[in-house]
Amino acid sequence: MKAARFHAQEDLRIEDIEEPVPGPGEVKIRNAYSGICGSDLHFYYAPEASGVNINEPHPITGAKPPQVLGHEFSGTVVELGDGVDGVEVGDRVVVWPIYYCGSCAACGKGMYNICRTIAFHGLSSNGGGMAEFTTIPASKVHVLPEGVDLRMGALVEPMAVAWHAVEASGIQAGQTAMIIGAGPIGIGVWFALRAHGVETVIVSEPSDERRAAIEGVGADLVVNPMAQDLAARVQEETGGRGVDVAFDAAGIGPALSGALTQLAPGGRAIVVAIHERPTEIQPTQFVMGETGISGTLAYLPEDFDAVIQAMADGKYTSEGWVSEVSLDGVVDAFHALRSGRRMKVLVRAD
Amino acid sequence: MKAARFHAQEDLRIEDIEEPVPGPGEVKIRNAYSGICGSDLHFYYAPEASGVNINEPHPITGAKPPQVLGHEFSGTVVELGDGVDGVEVGDRVVVWPIYYCGSCAACGKGMYNICRTIAFHGLSSNGGGMAEFTTIPASKVHVLPEGVDLRMGALVEPMAVAWHAVEASGIQAGQTAMIIGAGPIGIGVWFALRAHGVETVIVSEPSDERRAAIEGVGADLVVNPMAQDLAARVQEETGGRGVDVAFDAAGIGPALSGALTQLAPGGRAIVVAIHERPTEIQPTQFVMGETGISGTLAYLPEDFDAVIQAMADGKYTSEGWVSEVSLDGVVDAFHALRSGRRMKVLVRAD
Ligand SMILES: [Zn+2]
Ligand SMILES: [Zn+2]
Ligand SMILES: [Zn+2]
Ligand SMILES: [Zn+2]
Repeated sequence: MKAARFHAQEDLRIEDIEEPVPGPGEVKIRNAYSGICGSDLHFYYAPEASGVNINEPHPITGAKPPQVLGHEFSGTVVELGDGVDGVEVGDRVVVWPIYYCGSCAACGKGMYNICRTIAFHGLSSNGGGMAEFTTIPASKVHVLPEGVDLRMGALVEPMAVAWHAVEASGIQAGQTAMIIGAGPIGIGVWFALRAHGVETVIVSEPSDERRAAIEGVGADLVVNPMAQDLAARVQEETGGRGVDVAFDAAGIGPALSGALTQLAPGGRAIVVAIHERPTEIQPTQFVMGETGISGTLAYLPEDFDAVIQAMADGKYTSEGWVSEVSLDGVVDAFHALRSGRRMKVLVRAD
Repeated sequence: MKAARFHAQEDLRIEDIEEPVPGPGEVKIRNAYSGICGSDLHFYYAPEASGVNINEPHPITGAKPPQVLGHEFSGTVVELGDGVDGVEVGDRVVVWPIYYCGSCAACGKGMYNICRTIAFHGLSSNGGGMAEFTTIPASKVHVLPEGVDLRMGALVEPMAVAWHAVEASGIQAGQTAMIIGAGPIGIGVWFALRAHGVETVIVSEPSDERRAAIEGVGADLVVNPMAQDLAARVQEETGGRGVDVAFDAAGIGPALSGALTQLAPGGRAIVVAIHERPTEIQPTQFVMGETGISGTLAYLPEDFDAVIQAMADGKYTSEGWVSEVSLDGVVDAFHALRSGRRMKVLVRAD
């Protein structure tokens, strides 16, 4: 079968490899769409810095490069391994792609999304979404309901990252929010906030393309922080109170510090982006406003369920911010994404 | 009556002033004990930096220096103003000393403890605990039950600061904690954690006197971070998991950053100290461990109720860390506290 495999830094090959066979408890999926993620780019351009050790077999999955990419994918079940229950041939599915150790401090708390030796299907496992087929434990499969098509299904994973962050924030309907950064995660936060009944959402994004994209899905309070006074806009839109939650989907220190000063009493900043550099904060500001900052990573299976339900309820659209390429176009798409010329690209696996 | 009044920087006078008369809705209290607090020291030695504007009447209370000090005090009700209900002459009481505006963003959320124009009785009001008498709205009075004496009562305020922080942390019985700094607030956090059923509490404190003081009230995992490997001790006492909550009762940047690396998955650092300087953090660490940091300030009336109940239940002792001086000894006590030779000093108001 045809697959996009990572061999080494900036060495991704479209090649013909053997079709996988589902083992006991596994299903075989004919992949449909597979999103390209920031972590794919990171892995492709700087594997040593990506957190994945490409020189040793992964302690959980035993995998090492060459590695089929694609951890944000949808497809159709075409074969069941022995003893599979609850999934049927013909089911349209998405995959919760996390492998966890089950024994670390995080796993002990049920926080499998931050397992200390976490692996992802499509990044550090035997297979992924950027191939004609893959096999995966049936327990990781979420069946798509009618009304959620395979194209939308491939967006469940990035939307679940954002949903998880919104859930962790504890934000309530009627409260106010700010989103820093309107990339795919920022857009996901916007959808999740709307699904949670949050109406006042100020978006800060310096890129013209990204502002247009999030305005295209319905955001109406979108600010260019390089040209407009973000703080003044926050004060105006919140009646001088500040925002209850600020989501950092950009990973830029000064933008985060700025957001901390815009929090309402008791407000929270949620970091859902990787910061390359440390940043300076004044802890006294947390004391004076009883505010805080915390981080979230990835998602739990229940975040997948919630996003799929919200998609079925019509809360998401891929209009204006999602494009497609064929498997042969993956490397070009990586370059386009890296230079900011695309938002979210789905790879057609056929 | 005799009173300790702040006139200006390092100018505190023991003088004879007029006895206050309770207005409508107020009670007159014969003060018993009044604790000297870090904020009193701050105000005395550096009023311009303390957050209290000493040159203008306070917008809520109308007060400006000369100012009777003492916001952590207990006493006995000796007279009722018109229309006072629910408090009686002879009641032994403590005072929730906060005046709030009722209209700012914080007050709108019931967070009166962080009101933007907050005033404290004994710091920015017409009276305080370091005088023979004071008057105060009856609504701010908490009656002490039998079994909680007036000396213990004067500790309700600082213990409520710590209780509020422990409540905000959401810590549960059976979880683990670290306390950075064993001053009066650190000791208060220790008592509050014990009252919450938290058994594993690692205390980090470089001062010999302060380590001895917190050991004296029962702490058994006390570390000198200058001489011992705090991180190794945390790993050992928590089975390699890290602590669920770290309380920063010291306000030292490097100690706080160090604590952030010792948090269990999903753990929180609670800042309950003022930091004079900003500090560098790496937000990505919050993401990877889904950890966070937040701050708390002062207390709400319900924190007073909870502390008074815990005192009645025998959860607190003043043994070994609380000493007394007469009103004439206040300035000497300020100097002794500033140089670290005392922990908590109560001023006898008679
Ligand atoms: Zn992803
Ligand atoms: Zn694990
Ligand atoms: Zn105090
Ligand atoms: Zn207020």
